[in-house]
Amino acid sequence: MQDFSIDDQKYMARALNLARQGEGSTSPNPMVGAVVVKNGEIIGEGFHHKYGGPHAEVYALQAAGGAAAGADIYVNLEPCSHYGKTPPCAQKLIDSGIKRAVIAMIDPNPEVAGRGIKMLREAGIKVEVGLLEEKAQRLNESFLKYIQSDYPFVYLKKAQTLDGYIASSTGDSKWITNSRARLEGHRLRHRVDAIMVGIGTVLADNPSLTARLEAKNGIDPLRIILDPMLDIPMDARVINQKSRADTLIICAENFPPARAVEALEKKEILAQKEKVQVMSFKTGADNYFRLKDLLQTLHDHKISSILVEGGARLSHTFLKEKLVDKFYYFIAPKIYGGSDGIAAFWGSGPKMMADAVELKIIEQKNLGDNLLFIAEKMHDQKEN
Amino acid sequence: MQDFSIDDQKYMARALNLARQGEGSTSPNPMVGAVVVKNGEIIGEGFHHKYGGPHAEVYALQAAGGAAAGADIYVNLEPCSHYGKTPPCAQKLIDSGIKRAVIAMIDPNPEVAGRGIKMLREAGIKVEVGLLEEKAQRLNESFLKYIQSDYPFVYLKKAQTLDGYIASSTGDSKWITNSRARLEGHRLRHRVDAIMVGIGTVLADNPSLTARLEAKNGIDPLRIILDPMLDIPMDARVINQKSRADTLIICAENFPPARAVEALEKKEILAQKEKVQVMSFKTGADNYFRLKDLLQTLHDHKISSILVEGGARLSHTFLKEKLVDKFYYFIAPKIYGGSDGIAAFWGSGPKMMADAVELKIIEQKNLGDNLLFIAEKMHDQKEN
Repeated sequence: MQDFSIDDQKYMARALNLARQGEGSTSPNPMVGAVVVKNGEIIGEGFHHKYGGPHAEVYALQAAGGAAAGADIYVNLEPCSHYGKTPPCAQKLIDSGIKRAVIAMIDPNPEVAGRGIKMLREAGIKVEVGLLEEKAQRLNESFLKYIQSDYPFVYLKKAQTLDGYIASSTGDSKWITNSRARLEGHRLRHRVDAIMVGIGTVLADNPSLTARLEAKNGIDPLRIILDPMLDIPMDARVINQKSRADTLIICAENFPPARAVEALEKKEILAQKEKVQVMSFKTGADNYFRLKDLLQTLHDHKISSILVEGGARLSHTFLKEKLVDKFYYFIAPKIYGGSDGIAAFWGSGPKMMADAVELKIIEQKNLGDNLLFIAEKMHDQKEN
Repeated sequence: MQDFSIDDQKYMARALNLARQGEGSTSPNPMVGAVVVKNGEIIGEGFHHKYGGPHAEVYALQAAGGAAAGADIYVNLEPCSHYGKTPPCAQKLIDSGIKRAVIAMIDPNPEVAGRGIKMLREAGIKVEVGLLEEKAQRLNESFLKYIQSDYPFVYLKKAQTLDGYIASSTGDSKWITNSRARLEGHRLRHRVDAIMVGIGTVLADNPSLTARLEAKNGIDPLRIILDPMLDIPMDARVINQKSRADTLIICAENFPPARAVEALEKKEILAQKEKVQVMSFKTGADNYFRLKDLLQTLHDHKISSILVEGGARLSHTFLKEKLVDKFYYFIAPKIYGGSDGIAAFWGSGPKMMADAVELKIIEQKNLGDNLLFIAEKMHDQKEN
């Protein structure tokens, strides 16, 4: 790897911060930021705002104008190389007279995959790759999973007591975590394409599953309700609220779509049809969805990331089938103090503790008196 | 409160560090350290090594010798005032010509309780009280509870997965936490007078319950086994090991002591009689000990601190009866991932989450990838 200067690091960090501003609206595209620097000064910067909109490099070069000639550009992902309606970003860099391009990581998208870098080098631009690469990979983890596999990136969220309960024996769970932890949970919703819960969670908690941020408007994700027998009540909050996002109800295959629509109409749920979708999907002998296949189908529908929020049985299946990419574990400093509460995972665990799922903590945050662990599996076995 | 200088704080911190060196061997006396300072130099220091031995001030003044005249002394607890075989420490300070005494906290022992300070002041020594008082109180928390109530200070330790399990469905628990966390657990054993477990823990895990430190020899606490029906097997590790500490087996009252001894002798357990004690104690209708009364009895036997290590049912009772003063919560970054493991607390929890036991985290330590929370109840209701 090249030796990068402190200034290089500073500008790339800036590019990454810019990139993050597109969070929640670029999917299934990656988040990208670009910074153009000349004589130690930023002369242009930008980020990819939303799917279908201009790329980060376009904004940054536009802002720099003619001064881009002879300048350096910092971008967290390899500029694209494929011709579409407009020329590729790599060509735009060449045309603008950029002298040096610092790139955090190669774009694994098969349509790019090094071709952008090749174009730049062949045009005489000095290209350096790998600065803050790990950060760049983490930023676009869901895009990377999406582009490199047939599955979306799966986040699993838990909000529990110190002794591992997500609700009391009566199902009460208000509130286990504090307001800062809950806000962080909403940020996670804002970031993902879809949020998934089982019908049990809808029946027990009647959640809205929207992204409620403080400072800015959150972007609601698609709400996916696994509801094999279409038990969703007509007054469920999830389908009776103002939200730009749709709610996708997934029922069992033996519940034919036509009948599903009929059932929902009967319940007056499809009165606001454009916001509620129904899809039937195959289930196993236990009337439970084949989650891995379902994830693949959602991937086909351009869902690049999913947040699983509950309940305990759905979480157990995701864990057992090794479908979780990243865990968000919120822990409140309180003890439920019984063995009769609702555990975070409902089902059987391993016989030996050595077979528990070992996590690697990526980040540990104190949110007031609550704690957040962001973790991934210790040995990434790349099951998908 | 007085204004203390940075130097004052430094010397008192030194006194507290010295005091801690007596950890595990001063009980039921407090841990005390003393530092004598003249012209900005430490000219003598010392600590209370063990119950029955000389007090900290004696060592410190002895080291300072004649130079103590006109010097300052820093001590984390009020010097004693009662005459015994030797004169009280307050008198020794006066005799040595100490000019100023900085004291972290008043000794709540009814035999002292301000009388030491009064003696010093009446002799013309300038006395300042309250420097690092909270730290001094935490250091001697078990002494304070012991001297101010009829109960020992109770520590409850848990070592669990992120989702709250202390063992798998088959009872396997080796190992949930890492070696650093386990070492910290041994330090806790070293510090307390007694460690308490239910017979279920002995039967399931066959622990030694000794304090195994790395650098120095740990001081084993008294091992208390709650064994209503005398089910302890003759080959239990707890009574078949080299240890300076005794094992106290507590059986139900309806199991008469004579018969208990007979039963144990039959099991060849009392072959090493001086190390094993048997005591019978009253039980409730459920054949379970009345823990609060038992704690009072142990207090009468000069036990100032107890560490409850398990199992889940004993922990539940301690929690429910509000007998825990401080929680040591070790958490490993792994997910058991089922609802069939052994929960940290066995029994019923509250109906509403709002009635969970709220904790105030006093300290949060990263032990490698494990986490330790040291906490107390949020609202100290002083039940005892």
